[in-house]
Amino acid sequence: MTSSATQAPFDDIRALLQSVPGPDADAVAAVRAREAVLTKPMGSLGRLEEIVEWLAAWQRREVPKVDIVRVAVFAGNHGVAARGVSAYPPEVTKQMVANFTNGGAAINQMCASQDFSLRVYELALDHPTGDITETDALGERDCAATIAYGMEAIDGDIDLLCIGEMGIANTAVAAAIAHSLYGGAPEDWVGPGTGVVGPGLQAKIAAVDAAAKRMKAEGVTDGLEILRRVGGREIAGMAGAILAGRHHRVPVVVDGFVATSAACALHAVNPDAIAHCIFSHRSAEPAHTRMLECLGQTALLDLGLRLGEGTGAALAAGIIRVAAATHSGMATFEEAGVAAKSSD
Amino acid sequence: MTSSATQAPFDDIRALLQSVPGPDADAVAAVRAREAVLTKPMGSLGRLEEIVEWLAAWQRREVPKVDIVRVAVFAGNHGVAARGVSAYPPEVTKQMVANFTNGGAAINQMCASQDFSLRVYELALDHPTGDITETDALGERDCAATIAYGMEAIDGDIDLLCIGEMGIANTAVAAAIAHSLYGGAPEDWVGPGTGVVGPGLQAKIAAVDAAAKRMKAEGVTDGLEILRRVGGREIAGMAGAILAGRHHRVPVVVDGFVATSAACALHAVNPDAIAHCIFSHRSAEPAHTRMLECLGQTALLDLGLRLGEGTGAALAAGIIRVAAATHSGMATFEEAGVAAKSSD
Repeated sequence: MTSSATQAPFDDIRALLQSVPGPDADAVAAVRAREAVLTKPMGSLGRLEEIVEWLAAWQRREVPKVDIVRVAVFAGNHGVAARGVSAYPPEVTKQMVANFTNGGAAINQMCASQDFSLRVYELALDHPTGDITETDALGERDCAATIAYGMEAIDGDIDLLCIGEMGIANTAVAAAIAHSLYGGAPEDWVGPGTGVVGPGLQAKIAAVDAAAKRMKAEGVTDGLEILRRVGGREIAGMAGAILAGRHHRVPVVVDGFVATSAACALHAVNPDAIAHCIFSHRSAEPAHTRMLECLGQTALLDLGLRLGEGTGAALAAGIIRVAAATHSGMATFEEAGVAAKSSD
Repeated sequence: MTSSATQAPFDDIRALLQSVPGPDADAVAAVRAREAVLTKPMGSLGRLEEIVEWLAAWQRREVPKVDIVRVAVFAGNHGVAARGVSAYPPEVTKQMVANFTNGGAAINQMCASQDFSLRVYELALDHPTGDITETDALGERDCAATIAYGMEAIDGDIDLLCIGEMGIANTAVAAAIAHSLYGGAPEDWVGPGTGVVGPGLQAKIAAVDAAAKRMKAEGVTDGLEILRRVGGREIAGMAGAILAGRHHRVPVVVDGFVATSAACALHAVNPDAIAHCIFSHRSAEPAHTRMLECLGQTALLDLGLRLGEGTGAALAAGIIRVAAATHSGMATFEEAGVAAKSSD
């Protein structure tokens, strides 16, 4: 039920999504050439070597660096929370935002102990989105404005952006996005989230089922439309941050299940649009594994995390920073006077 | 061929192995009690929560801390290298030790970028061990002295010890230890190591086969004896470091395939003796997976690393430090004014 008058905001975003720059092949070639002469067997740093190439491709730097890491946490509230789909009451979103501000949350410690900069984006917490079982979460103008706001997560000289979220009921919303995009059964996409069981879990399954059936009935398959209709503000904000990262040479580290749903929405419009994203960890939320499969991605870490807040992304960013420092700081075989392989 | 006169040195080590202290149950209980009231759903930090309990158990601290991290790299040379079992010539061990000293290796960058302290233990590099296909690697006195030297890796106020190694041909030696301890076929335990293929790989398989057959023919099944007869100095040094960590309240982060073989030797004598060890990563060396299964361990990371030097351990230590900082720094529900679970 989109009128042509409200198409305009999404058209701008869609244009940005379709015009994403490709990787910097020269920077990747420079990294590979250096990698081949560093004092270690070729390939022996495994995924770390891939990470450095990935950084080079999207930072467009022949010597990638990860000096300034930003963690952007987007917070939103959801009309569907009223259906009892979460183990926690909806006021916890705002309380946790206060906890972020006061430095008491898990993500605060992870940022402080790793010298990462943390920004929290509070998205109209007193105005929950529409209940997705019955109506669209957001109007197009509201959704587009939130995506644009999310794009502001890229500023200054950030080398790497981590995205995360807080929002009671948002694993239900992320499941609704995935179920609408990828089909299957609602149970395929619904898990315990913060720890919902029994009747709450049944309510969550029913809500996700209803939201996806609404999309099917209305014939909605477009990623941005699904984001707007069965998504939420923090997910739209993260989608904007991903998109801005691509256009501003900032690779993006995606947190868990909910953050990945933002990438899914963009991927549905243009699969190449998330090539500058790395998926930080495989969440304990069971459907995250399926979501990553739909994106053809393998997570960097597998630590049974299911907190959100960007915690998995912040852990992965620590490893990415070490990967970059290792590549840029190591001596070559020639510099170190180390003999090359016997078999060469 | 062990004479009773040379038994004495191992008897002391065996006594230390059999008298390892148990976990600090009070410290673990204190961590669990605090974990339950921190501002996050219980269990939502997954493996990080287990890590904090593990730190508490073995540091014997109710509030574990990871301020001072030491990486100890043990280097040794191997008689079996003359059989062409490695892709690199044996002089590379000494050249890489010089590279460590000059700050050019991968482990140097990982330590510098994470503010870890690095110590390199050079173990008689000009005197390779005996060729394990034909003779014992070390005499008992020499092996016991090397284990004792490795125990010196624990000094000062270290909170966490990472152990790693350098030694051309030492994946062959680690495979010989595992094959001697756990049986199977030599091919089950032999992989490419630094990248050996073709005739070199066949030579490696033959060497591991010969070494294990020697142990079988002589009826040797004891972990310390296998370490001495088909092991190497850097592996004995790491075994000492593990043992000292237990007796001095320092949890140990074990690197990859070769470092794990040191844990295997101790585990064969007393399975409880490595409970204070965490296995940092699953190596790309295929047999490491089998080795971890024999120990009943799941590695923390799976990044396709196969470099050694303690690099996987240093990456894991970064995560362990964040886990400790997160636990100790977070606010409780009461402190933060966050509502508890609806369903509670």
